[in-house]
Amino acid sequence: MYTIIGTWKMVYPGLEEAARMLKEGVCAGDAVVHTVRRVEDDPELSSVGYGGLPDREGRVFLDAAYMDGNTLRVGAVLSAENIANPILAARLLCGRKTDCILAGHGAERFAVAQGLPMRDMRTESSMKRWRDTVAEESFAAGAYRGHDTVCVLALDGDGRMAVGTSTSGLFMKEPGRVGDTPLIGSGFYADARYGAAAATGLGEDIMRGCLSYEAVSLMRLGASPEAACREALAHLAGRLGELGESPENISMIALSPDGEFGAATTLPVFPFAVGNEKGSVLYAANIYTKPDIHVAADDEIAHID
Amino acid sequence: MYTIIGTWKMVYPGLEEAARMLKEGVCAGDAVVHTVRRVEDDPELSSVGYGGLPDREGRVFLDAAYMDGNTLRVGAVLSAENIANPILAARLLCGRKTDCILAGHGAERFAVAQGLPMRDMRTESSMKRWRDTVAEESFAAGAYRGHDTVCVLALDGDGRMAVGTSTSGLFMKEPGRVGDTPLIGSGFYADARYGAAAATGLGEDIMRGCLSYEAVSLMRLGASPEAACREALAHLAGRLGELGESPENISMIALSPDGEFGAATTLPVFPFAVGNEKGSVLYAANIYTKPDIHVAADDEIAHID
Repeated sequence: MYTIIGTWKMVYPGLEEAARMLKEGVCAGDAVVHTVRRVEDDPELSSVGYGGLPDREGRVFLDAAYMDGNTLRVGAVLSAENIANPILAARLLCGRKTDCILAGHGAERFAVAQGLPMRDMRTESSMKRWRDTVAEESFAAGAYRGHDTVCVLALDGDGRMAVGTSTSGLFMKEPGRVGDTPLIGSGFYADARYGAAAATGLGEDIMRGCLSYEAVSLMRLGASPEAACREALAHLAGRLGELGESPENISMIALSPDGEFGAATTLPVFPFAVGNEKGSVLYAANIYTKPDIHVAADDEIAHID
Repeated sequence: MYTIIGTWKMVYPGLEEAARMLKEGVCAGDAVVHTVRRVEDDPELSSVGYGGLPDREGRVFLDAAYMDGNTLRVGAVLSAENIANPILAARLLCGRKTDCILAGHGAERFAVAQGLPMRDMRTESSMKRWRDTVAEESFAAGAYRGHDTVCVLALDGDGRMAVGTSTSGLFMKEPGRVGDTPLIGSGFYADARYGAAAATGLGEDIMRGCLSYEAVSLMRLGASPEAACREALAHLAGRLGELGESPENISMIALSPDGEFGAATTLPVFPFAVGNEKGSVLYAANIYTKPDIHVAADDEIAHID
């Protein structure tokens, strides 16, 4: 038995390959890294890795994390530039007893020392988008556009679980901004005994509820992955509602140790992909107050990456 | 009613002042910042702020965070150099809808732009310690020495709760290393409806259990602050035990919305300070498997900062 689940339509090609790898006996960690790496490498996918979204100054800074659900070890790089595959650096950091999370130049130097490929992560397309936005007078107010993180959870035939996340963060972010993606408990969490979860959306809201740890805690108490995602989101929404706020643009995925998967979202439609013995399928989840997970219809998700 | 609680003996002078400020009606956030700042400013306290512990290259990089338990907003600086009071930068970042966590140069530029004092955080004493350690052949193996984070939780007379944390991180850390201190859910968490918690010790282990969020979750379910700290630690210890590990050197504090406080530790003795209507007292907690919180005896904590 194996299952792999990832956020957004953009994850599908790599996830389909990774599902076949899992079928052939590859471990959960390799499947996760393969999937995330495929998204990082694709210059057409503008919110992750190569061709990612620039910050206010036109530089692309990346966040990524990897967690081993069997050892509870984590690795992450924060606000790192020029690392071709941040997920590879995060995975190499996972397993260290200390110094497993590195920010900025420290992360870049680690990647160089490990022999990882370095590259200018900007593309003509990402820089055109930046130049066009800077040319608008009101660019600061439009900062919150495009921020889709790739999150992948996998369970392999030996019961191992792993999670990987990668993003270039908010478009036009302030230099040095770190969101939830590389933050354990907020952007991701995995405990092979209870399950794994990850979140994508406005990181600054996701972290206020430590949504991924909360979802895994709910699975520990017996919730299904889908119920865990919905309850975690509903709890944060309830608290923010008391503060006169509502959580915007948060989506979650979760996976149980027996291969059951689930998702929840505050969006009208959130596409995610799942691969298991039955094949690989693109699903859509609807806003968590109207829970419905179904095979995604093409016209439903045509406008979404 | 007001209560303020902070980690380690070093927090006591500032906490005693902050407790008097709370009595006079100052808000929880101001009390937290006052206490943390006093520790940051003291060059004799070698693990926080000015005179903090250098990394392998002899540079002092600082992590700090601030959370408002009433708004669930957070601010943090990660791996930042030359900010005289990282806690002030963290507090200024708290309340932003986006870009509330800044790493490296981004954090430093934010501090400059806000008019915060900048300074070389190295002292002759901290550099002598670094030079002496570099001169030892085995310095890498001795990396894990001295890493006491200041964590402060406060509740004010209006029911507001705030938490602040600050550290220079592991002595001889790899450049860019970020521990649990600035990570929401791991190093700290506060929700004025349920309580606040913070952790100090080996950050790489603390984050594996998202200990602060876990403790606040337990208070949400009805646990006392002391039980929440002990259960959070025991849960992580149990999971690590299954992996053949044991959590070393983790201490926690917690505070409830009604002013009740608690602590737990994996150390033989963990000193912490509490200020409330009854005055300010230095307590000691014993290892969580033998729970005992008592007024600290001088000889018991003479060797601890």
